[in-house]
Amino acid sequence: MDIAATTCSAKDLAVLLSSSNSTSSLAAATFLCSQFSNISSKLSDTTYAVDNTYLLFSAYLVFAMQLGFAMLCAGSVRAKNTMNIMLTNVLDAAAGAISYYLFGFAFAFGTPSNGFIGRHHSYFALSSYPERPGADFSFFLYQWAFAIAAAGITSGSIAERTQFVAYLIYSSFLTGFVYPTVSHWFWSTDGWASASRSDNNLLFGSGAIDFAGSGVVHMVGGIAGLWGALIEGPRIGRFDRLGRSVALRGHSASLVVLGTFLLWFGWYGFNPGSFLTILKRYEKSLPYYGQWSAVGRTAVTTTLAGCTSALTTLFSKRLLAGHWNVIDVCNGLLGGFAAITSGCAVVEPWAAIVCGFVASWVLIGFNLVAKKLKYDDPLEAAQLHGGCGAWGVIFTGLFATKRYVNEVYSGDGDRPYGLLMGGGGKLLAAQFVQIVVIIGWVSVTMGPLFYGLHKMNLLRISTEDEMAGMDMTRHGGFAYAYNDEDDVSVKPWGKVGATSQSSTPTPTLTA
Amino acid sequence: MDIAATTCSAKDLAVLLSSSNSTSSLAAATFLCSQFSNISSKLSDTTYAVDNTYLLFSAYLVFAMQLGFAMLCAGSVRAKNTMNIMLTNVLDAAAGAISYYLFGFAFAFGTPSNGFIGRHHSYFALSSYPERPGADFSFFLYQWAFAIAAAGITSGSIAERTQFVAYLIYSSFLTGFVYPTVSHWFWSTDGWASASRSDNNLLFGSGAIDFAGSGVVHMVGGIAGLWGALIEGPRIGRFDRLGRSVALRGHSASLVVLGTFLLWFGWYGFNPGSFLTILKRYEKSLPYYGQWSAVGRTAVTTTLAGCTSALTTLFSKRLLAGHWNVIDVCNGLLGGFAAITSGCAVVEPWAAIVCGFVASWVLIGFNLVAKKLKYDDPLEAAQLHGGCGAWGVIFTGLFATKRYVNEVYSGDGDRPYGLLMGGGGKLLAAQFVQIVVIIGWVSVTMGPLFYGLHKMNLLRISTEDEMAGMDMTRHGGFAYAYNDEDDVSVKPWGKVGATSQSSTPTPTLTA
Amino acid sequence: MDIAATTCSAKDLAVLLSSSNSTSSLAAATFLCSQFSNISSKLSDTTYAVDNTYLLFSAYLVFAMQLGFAMLCAGSVRAKNTMNIMLTNVLDAAAGAISYYLFGFAFAFGTPSNGFIGRHHSYFALSSYPERPGADFSFFLYQWAFAIAAAGITSGSIAERTQFVAYLIYSSFLTGFVYPTVSHWFWSTDGWASASRSDNNLLFGSGAIDFAGSGVVHMVGGIAGLWGALIEGPRIGRFDRLGRSVALRGHSASLVVLGTFLLWFGWYGFNPGSFLTILKRYEKSLPYYGQWSAVGRTAVTTTLAGCTSALTTLFSKRLLAGHWNVIDVCNGLLGGFAAITSGCAVVEPWAAIVCGFVASWVLIGFNLVAKKLKYDDPLEAAQLHGGCGAWGVIFTGLFATKRYVNEVYSGDGDRPYGLLMGGGGKLLAAQFVQIVVIIGWVSVTMGPLFYGLHKMNLLRISTEDEMAGMDMTRHGGFAYAYNDEDDVSVKPWGKVGATSQSSTPTPTLTA
Repeated sequence: MDIAATTCSAKDLAVLLSSSNSTSSLAAATFLCSQFSNISSKLSDTTYAVDNTYLLFSAYLVFAMQLGFAMLCAGSVRAKNTMNIMLTNVLDAAAGAISYYLFGFAFAFGTPSNGFIGRHHSYFALSSYPERPGADFSFFLYQWAFAIAAAGITSGSIAERTQFVAYLIYSSFLTGFVYPTVSHWFWSTDGWASASRSDNNLLFGSGAIDFAGSGVVHMVGGIAGLWGALIEGPRIGRFDRLGRSVALRGHSASLVVLGTFLLWFGWYGFNPGSFLTILKRYEKSLPYYGQWSAVGRTAVTTTLAGCTSALTTLFSKRLLAGHWNVIDVCNGLLGGFAAITSGCAVVEPWAAIVCGFVASWVLIGFNLVAKKLKYDDPLEAAQLHGGCGAWGVIFTGLFATKRYVNEVYSGDGDRPYGLLMGGGGKLLAAQFVQIVVIIGWVSVTMGPLFYGLHKMNLLRISTEDEMAGMDMTRHGGFAYAYNDEDDVSVKPWGKVGATSQSSTPTPTLTA
Repeated sequence: MDIAATTCSAKDLAVLLSSSNSTSSLAAATFLCSQFSNISSKLSDTTYAVDNTYLLFSAYLVFAMQLGFAMLCAGSVRAKNTMNIMLTNVLDAAAGAISYYLFGFAFAFGTPSNGFIGRHHSYFALSSYPERPGADFSFFLYQWAFAIAAAGITSGSIAERTQFVAYLIYSSFLTGFVYPTVSHWFWSTDGWASASRSDNNLLFGSGAIDFAGSGVVHMVGGIAGLWGALIEGPRIGRFDRLGRSVALRGHSASLVVLGTFLLWFGWYGFNPGSFLTILKRYEKSLPYYGQWSAVGRTAVTTTLAGCTSALTTLFSKRLLAGHWNVIDVCNGLLGGFAAITSGCAVVEPWAAIVCGFVASWVLIGFNLVAKKLKYDDPLEAAQLHGGCGAWGVIFTGLFATKRYVNEVYSGDGDRPYGLLMGGGGKLLAAQFVQIVVIIGWVSVTMGPLFYGLHKMNLLRISTEDEMAGMDMTRHGGFAYAYNDEDDVSVKPWGKVGATSQSSTPTPTLTA
Repeated sequence: MDIAATTCSAKDLAVLLSSSNSTSSLAAATFLCSQFSNISSKLSDTTYAVDNTYLLFSAYLVFAMQLGFAMLCAGSVRAKNTMNIMLTNVLDAAAGAISYYLFGFAFAFGTPSNGFIGRHHSYFALSSYPERPGADFSFFLYQWAFAIAAAGITSGSIAERTQFVAYLIYSSFLTGFVYPTVSHWFWSTDGWASASRSDNNLLFGSGAIDFAGSGVVHMVGGIAGLWGALIEGPRIGRFDRLGRSVALRGHSASLVVLGTFLLWFGWYGFNPGSFLTILKRYEKSLPYYGQWSAVGRTAVTTTLAGCTSALTTLFSKRLLAGHWNVIDVCNGLLGGFAAITSGCAVVEPWAAIVCGFVASWVLIGFNLVAKKLKYDDPLEAAQLHGGCGAWGVIFTGLFATKRYVNEVYSGDGDRPYGLLMGGGGKLLAAQFVQIVVIIGWVSVTMGPLFYGLHKMNLLRISTEDEMAGMDMTRHGGFAYAYNDEDDVSVKPWGKVGATSQSSTPTPTLTA
């Protein structure tokens, strides 16, 4: 007697169980095993569906940061360069998609690979992809959104004075090679400094912990921008004849705030999303506690760090500058986010407040240094993403907790953790190594690139273009037309046009 | 003989089943039970992952409403106060995060608690958190996003004339104490008027049903704004010497529409998200029908109420004012949303249309009253969130259906429901109690606060500041610089600066 | 002896299993079956929750496209018509919600139905809904968001010269009847040309594959706009007396870029979301590969097509027009998206690059044709959504792969697929039929509607209104007030008003 695999008939099953002949028992056992197998398969499907849903929507949020960058950058430059900067933001995303698809993703995560870079055999143009669980299209999309974020940071540093062709070149190079290499080092399962190496050969027995990329994304973008801005020099008028700093104010605070809030919104994909999966219970913990809790905690630490930094900036700038400045508060907020991005998953919420408080002062400090050195960065990108990003990497080495490090990075409880939490100096040492190698790598790759462009006169625009604004000279016109005099249709010849003998059904004017 | 716990070998299992000795049977039974236990554990993990994913992304959407408020407020004020109002919106979120983290959340949901307020033993600064299923970090983040929404509403009422320091004070007080208390009363499992009390001691056997907070959020924010705006008085020029109303138009309809759409977008986190979980089948219903269906229905009722209110406002304003006004339509839309927020989960879609239709007229009516009383609220926030919110609370008492009330609030079918649906007057009575206590509580807390600030000259800005605009006097400058003459780099001394003997690689001008 | 259904006691179960009397065996079997039944039920609940979560958030993203349209349209028109165009966008959503709720959804998906249209028995005003798995409220919300997208496309074509009442009429008609019918043909399980008919009576044995609606949404909106714009004729001044094209530039490039990025963001709901579910393993594939992978791949093809089209447009316009134009790049990007929307789920990522490359040239070509024919479409909506949409439908007939077609549309491996992929011409033939019938259907419905409105003088605004701008004449004023002179509060009579003897607590001016 047999029993259908899809339904469970207690009567039929009882017959099989009550018999003691081996055929019946085998039928019963086969039925039971097939049930368990079906259930296991369905549970596994569910896990894939949940994790992919989680990762895809996180990727969409990270993508929204590109819109945030575009609006933040647009608002922070003068009206005459609005079209220019927005075009670079659109193209960071578009050119980045092609170069990351063709090359970058394979360099970052292609297998086989060595500790330095993914090898050539696969993943170029997504060939033989997806090939294993956890490496699905959602993962590619998520990583692409990160790559273009790095390029977006750099575009801020060199705004208002850079030739458009230089953007296309550096952006593709950064997205297709420089950034993917760094992400391989720290995030792939065989990166030489990765905290999630699949073998146990971890740097200092720890690996650098840069959970969502204070170093990998923000420092890379910021250091690249630093070299670009240094080689180009400041915008005309940024420092007066006595060398005093002259603020070249952005043309729209509304766009700055819009962009900042969109970045905040997107950061909830950037930081909590970096878990990549959400359906995972942590062993040896309470049943209701798992990766889903850690994801939520990461959203909370992110929020608290940014908010603390914003408040600190508000009051410190009030004391230093005498007014309540929304632009500075926005930058402070973003500095707090850039800093917590490294440790967001492995620190307590209260520590995030420490992180944000210090980040605010780091940004203020680097801005003072920049002013002294006559360094001009229209978005403060090098100071903010580079400076606060570096602080964030160090912060993780100080405040990462034992429990969270071992949960998030699947340790046995004996991983090094934050120095101030009693975890020794190994993690902190790895963090310092990360800072050094990122500065080194980005400098030896992007520095020569920008210098070469400079030498070929492909980097900086002409003085005439800079005075007139790039929108008029290179991008087809001014970005705005609010007034009637800008409006061609009310000009005499516009009216005349309307009274022409056109055969189109235009209503005619009775002059 | 034994059988591995993770795989099911039919052959091995058959041997165990066919034998009738008790050791074998125990091995078979142990194996089967461990399989069921593993499956149960995995199903439970899945539920946590799905529900947390749902709640986190809902929280992100609710957070996006803060951006919506910022843009709506910015567009609704005059250009000269844009930086000011946007800064208050950024700080509602930032200061709100700190005060809600430190105090508010514990007051609202800390345990142990009494009917009035959460007690001090836990949850302050998220200590001993998370401590049980359903109270994870995602829940904190979600509740924080609600708290700052309330503060955001109030900031609209007192826009364009309030000292910045007053914002910081009222916003922290509202987010950290006044709002959390109200949310405890109506939403915690032991709030004195909560419809989801864990004991059965419900107010009028029903409790007030304010599913997503027409009362708890919108009325609280609106009534707080009412007191602030009343105590400050209208903006200069808002009523002329004859007492006639003079429209002080906002400076950008584009920002108003942007903000309105963003609020609409975020409302899909606010209302459907208030279920907190989505993976729950309703007993005694068809297998494909569960909380996931109710969540979808809530999104639909929300949509229909807002849209109906927008259309009603469009036509009524066309009749009353003679033109099609997008600003009024936006406010009508938001009024419909504020109203449906209370009953969205427990009414039929057709009833949502009734809700929106009336909400439009409620807003128009309260705006007429405000004009008569020379009450000046730049965002119509008290009228919209207070007035339409109150209508929404009543609407629920009229139209809540038996089935939905018992599904959503886990009743046995004998809960009171909407008066017009045949459910008697008990729910409606509870709803009236809610309106009264919210007005009372907010008035006795926020009223004295605003009055105290007023008496200490910390509330209203000086006449000079108001005439000049706060951005110039307090926030470092005007929010916009569209024209060349605003641009320092084209001014003579700007050019001179560029020709200075700076050592930075600035291109020099050949005059 | 009995055993509790909810827990598994190995000891009790062992007793039952070891006994060979039939009562014990029945108890054991009953227990085991009830366990499997509970698990199956819970797995089914999980699937509903996951799929509804996926679909709801996708719907929210698609809704965000309406905000994208609003900003894109606003930025693309002259400042004097900003309020007008934004109001139409708000009303596409609002009026569309009511008409789709009342009629449209039933025409599209109501059952019973025939191949042409859903019948009247159900679904009107969501009566007897939800009634089966897969047809829940989330599905209604998702379809509504699609319907208003079609209307939003059309509003771009007829911008800056159309009476507001005409918008209300065409928008409700399009959302309530014309679009739902087309979506029934191609997307319902008994549409005459649907690729997912539940019987096997497929058009050419294939059905037209329009996965997310290059034809159903974009062509419908574009062709409707074409007729509207043709019947109205060009805006005054769009072509001069010699018939030369005069660009009437939009008033804000920032809004255009904002809108474009928001549309991009929302497209991740539009295309990947069109799977409707995500928890589905594909048979005969590797265990980690399922609908979740296909969803991710769809997001990738969408991204690559748009980005390729943007880059192609950038360089081609640089060659043709001599400058780098962000507005053109935005349109190119959107053209790539409109094109890939049909085949996004059934083509390889590399093919998406082909799709985007051609889409860019299609748009450039149709724009040249439009200029020659003196066709004026302020948003290029007919060219972009109609033209690139049609290309996308053809592209699917050329590049759809065998494997993906059979996975996504549940075939046995013998469905026709792309001509260039070796799948024969049947699919391509079905695609051509789709293009023809959409052009035909929209022309015979929307053409007469617009013509009738034209004949009744309800379509085009007066010349005076057009010259002055609709915002001043019909919508209560200009959308912006950036300058002090626009600000009533600083005008003398404004000041006077403030010094009046008002009883409100206005601070008085000391002149």
